[in-house]
Amino acid sequence: MPEQMKPMDIEKRSFEIITQLLGDQKLDPENELVIKRVIHTTADFEYVKNLVFSEHAVQKGIEALRSGCDIVTDTQMAKSGINKTILGKLGGQVHCFMSDADVAEEARRRGVTRAVVSMERAAGLSKPCIFAIGNAPTALISLHQQRQEGNISPALIIGVPVGFVNVVESKELIIASDVPHIVARGRKGGSNVAAAICNAMLYQIMR
Amino acid sequence: MPEQMKPMDIEKRSFEIITQLLGDQKLDPENELVIKRVIHTTADFEYVKNLVFSEHAVQKGIEALRSGCDIVTDTQMAKSGINKTILGKLGGQVHCFMSDADVAEEARRRGVTRAVVSMERAAGLSKPCIFAIGNAPTALISLHQQRQEGNISPALIIGVPVGFVNVVESKELIIASDVPHIVARGRKGGSNVAAAICNAMLYQIMR
Repeated sequence: MPEQMKPMDIEKRSFEIITQLLGDQKLDPENELVIKRVIHTTADFEYVKNLVFSEHAVQKGIEALRSGCDIVTDTQMAKSGINKTILGKLGGQVHCFMSDADVAEEARRRGVTRAVVSMERAAGLSKPCIFAIGNAPTALISLHQQRQEGNISPALIIGVPVGFVNVVESKELIIASDVPHIVARGRKGGSNVAAAICNAMLYQIMR
Repeated sequence: MPEQMKPMDIEKRSFEIITQLLGDQKLDPENELVIKRVIHTTADFEYVKNLVFSEHAVQKGIEALRSGCDIVTDTQMAKSGINKTILGKLGGQVHCFMSDADVAEEARRRGVTRAVVSMERAAGLSKPCIFAIGNAPTALISLHQQRQEGNISPALIIGVPVGFVNVVESKELIIASDVPHIVARGRKGGSNVAAAICNAMLYQIMR
């Protein structure tokens, strides 16, 4: 085994290796650090092609974070993966309503998913928000509907649920809309990817 | 959009689609639910080939969980992804020492990673443990060394760090050893994969 490296050196070396392995594939400089951090998190180079960015999505996300926006996730895993120290210094915090007892209760009563109720709760937040959705297609569908109804105005939607049922379709809804978005087209994604995209933007502001 | 499905129906349908997509690829029945849950979590079929199981690793993991063993993770993300309700009913809990202030302090003082110190703390736990490592190769290396020194006797090591530096080598250390293990060979893995493997075993006991 090679000698012990410091975490920041390991990360630097990892990004160098990712750059080498990308070879001739040129990334849009505006999106490059997001794409590379997702690869760093997954070791999956398919994200070079899968990730879809609306115009200046990363810049818009960074501007919102700089202004102290909050982040809403659809899993505790994504919440726990986001760098809350940096977010907090910028004046933001992460919300995840999925485990709230009254959310489960309301979802049961109405016959909808907890993700739907969670996204409706998020509409009640007084601050601008980035939505980081790594799990539930119903969260994306709810955000799309709420936006059409004028209930919410997301600073950015990170649409990266993973899975096999309604996942692809829910992402295409967001891609076809005019909301600022970063979406992992296809089946792949996850809470880890959602957190990585948030962190890629946070690290561009402060580290 | 199709009408709203219940979460358990979505999961059932997802597993049916995964089975369809696997086509002629036959999975070892003992490992099948672990492999399928990792695919369910990642939408990445490479895990069919990547996942390496020592003899009866899944059975050993399930027996340990049934006996009320604890789980130790190397990230808060993995901890938050594990089904702690079922684990708790079986008498177990999840430990993650990574964010403990004194772990960070000791790591800094000794010039090692927090993961190394965390794994040493875990050696002090009085119960048998499953180690679910989805991030830090140094955690795997530490577990290997501590085992050689007779400090720990893991019920199972889930070795699925993701990345580009020391990751492949640290996993091969575990594969070459005689500790019960489930390892994602190569660069891929993650905290989500570590949690999925734990949950696949927990769900085989209780749901």
